[in-house]
Amino acid sequence: MKAIDVGTSASYQVLIDCGLIRSSGVYIRKLIKPGKAAVISDSNVFPLYGKTVIDSLNNAGFEVYSFCFQAGEAQKNSTTYLQILNFLAENSFTRSDTLIALGGGVVGDMTGFAAATYLRGIPYIQIPTTLLAMVDSSVGGKTAIDLPAGKNLVGAFYQPTLVLCDPDALSTLPASVFRDGCAEVIKYGVLFDAKLFDHLYDKGLSFDREYVITRCVELKKEVVQQDEYDRGRRQLLNLGHTFGHAIEAQSDFQVSHGQAVAIGMAIISRACAACNLCSLQVSGAVCDILALFGLPHSTTYTAEQLYQGALSDKKRAGETVNLIITKQIGCCDILPTPISQVQSFIEAGL
Amino acid sequence: MKAIDVGTSASYQVLIDCGLIRSSGVYIRKLIKPGKAAVISDSNVFPLYGKTVIDSLNNAGFEVYSFCFQAGEAQKNSTTYLQILNFLAENSFTRSDTLIALGGGVVGDMTGFAAATYLRGIPYIQIPTTLLAMVDSSVGGKTAIDLPAGKNLVGAFYQPTLVLCDPDALSTLPASVFRDGCAEVIKYGVLFDAKLFDHLYDKGLSFDREYVITRCVELKKEVVQQDEYDRGRRQLLNLGHTFGHAIEAQSDFQVSHGQAVAIGMAIISRACAACNLCSLQVSGAVCDILALFGLPHSTTYTAEQLYQGALSDKKRAGETVNLIITKQIGCCDILPTPISQVQSFIEAGL
Repeated sequence: MKAIDVGTSASYQVLIDCGLIRSSGVYIRKLIKPGKAAVISDSNVFPLYGKTVIDSLNNAGFEVYSFCFQAGEAQKNSTTYLQILNFLAENSFTRSDTLIALGGGVVGDMTGFAAATYLRGIPYIQIPTTLLAMVDSSVGGKTAIDLPAGKNLVGAFYQPTLVLCDPDALSTLPASVFRDGCAEVIKYGVLFDAKLFDHLYDKGLSFDREYVITRCVELKKEVVQQDEYDRGRRQLLNLGHTFGHAIEAQSDFQVSHGQAVAIGMAIISRACAACNLCSLQVSGAVCDILALFGLPHSTTYTAEQLYQGALSDKKRAGETVNLIITKQIGCCDILPTPISQVQSFIEAGL
Repeated sequence: MKAIDVGTSASYQVLIDCGLIRSSGVYIRKLIKPGKAAVISDSNVFPLYGKTVIDSLNNAGFEVYSFCFQAGEAQKNSTTYLQILNFLAENSFTRSDTLIALGGGVVGDMTGFAAATYLRGIPYIQIPTTLLAMVDSSVGGKTAIDLPAGKNLVGAFYQPTLVLCDPDALSTLPASVFRDGCAEVIKYGVLFDAKLFDHLYDKGLSFDREYVITRCVELKKEVVQQDEYDRGRRQLLNLGHTFGHAIEAQSDFQVSHGQAVAIGMAIISRACAACNLCSLQVSGAVCDILALFGLPHSTTYTAEQLYQGALSDKKRAGETVNLIITKQIGCCDILPTPISQVQSFIEAGL
């Protein structure tokens, strides 16, 4: 088993091991005195792993409740969030009780936000079941729900008590959802680690899962420890996301998060090459690896449409948007950009 | 002008001075670079002070928006909270923009929670206009909204950037609302400061407002600095609130917060005297001072009804409720009490 210590305001471990879901109760009990535990999951994941987790928690002495909602980004909204809160209140959950997020990014983000705000904060555990959630959203304490005006506009920084990562869970992922997670994995290579990038370029979809998950969590942990509250270096993780979020929103979420981030990374790297911020080799390598993983690297949305989406980006500060630019494979930078220049930058990358 | 430094995770000042509302923009600008500012207020306070604050912010260079909701505890709910969030998103508020809470506890709690969660946290300023908000809810970073199942069940610990306390604003308070605040002021005397209690006992409703507000903020600051996240000593501030919240909820909020806290303190002190935790003189003095301020000290609700309400108290941990007990005037304690013993304790205090 791999164990990675994350040293944020509240420190915790990410455990990575095949079969870990089956003994989740054992590891949770080591940290939390058995009381009530609510397993929050969605209609895709709960039928697959709900009983396993509930049984394991019961065996560890927890009084287990479960709340299952319809799968999909469209459910990551205030209605589902309030349903979870009312469910906890109606079942008299107290500050010594626990939430278990069992699922992908939507489940983890929303459960984390419910845990952050119910009674002003109760403990929660992440059990990510998608590649995206394992390498990215389950670590670092960013929790959120969407508003009609945009993604992740409401949330909190709130660290989990434990993250249990079971690579075996990837076996039940639909191929398209696995590829979505690959977009985030590729992002870590482009951002920080040419060796990771080369491994992915070399192996394609049959990359070494335990090595890659572990490496991504290590890279994320480093950034989060340096900048827990996203005021500086952590914004690097936004690579491909500023325009990616705009594409997701424009498509009414018909374009998935991973596909949108892939397109966002491609646009940024092409724009950087066009502006001499990186070489053509770099943007070529980014687009090539996306194609190798079956991910898109272009869009039919116009620069004007993507610009409008970028205006509602959370990292916007007044009249400036912080764009994450590719300089080399394994080396990116934050470029504060006046919003008046954003549209022409996008045009250079389409 | 009095200036009190609060040294929490984010430190800030509470400024106390007559006429401060008129120059609010000046003091806010000293801390925050002018951008967008949203004045959040209610239908009682906005007509009285809205224009003054907006003019002052405009003069300081802010681009000012305002959001006004129907006054009353019943509005401190998820619907109003989401309206505020959507209002901010629709007006493209970014992380460098600011919320201004102009009003009493409901406005402050809800604005603080919106600020804590919009884009995972933006700055906010408290301009309390009620006695309760000045001495209690505007300091310490407790933000919240209510759920159907109970008060303040959802929220965050999130400190303001500045608190501007203008005792002149008390002149426009209805007498009943002023008395409500007096219940919290009396609470500080009972909890921590026999001298403050004696001043209130001596002067009644014509107490020295600047002295009393300043003293209460100092006392609150001390507790909050020691225990920002309410795991220990800060729970003392809950004196009278466990049963007070139950009375408010049972009455469908026809009994005001201050009245309910007054009754809660009276019940607790009588129960403590009955259980030999304090003398009859102590419970007598508590009930006498409440009567002197025109506050109630008894209820027709049964012990069973108050017990049910106490079960949903946020400070409950598993099978125990932390009751705050009066030992002497100026000295109270936290008594973890098995829920099986709570009802008979209440009965002793009715």
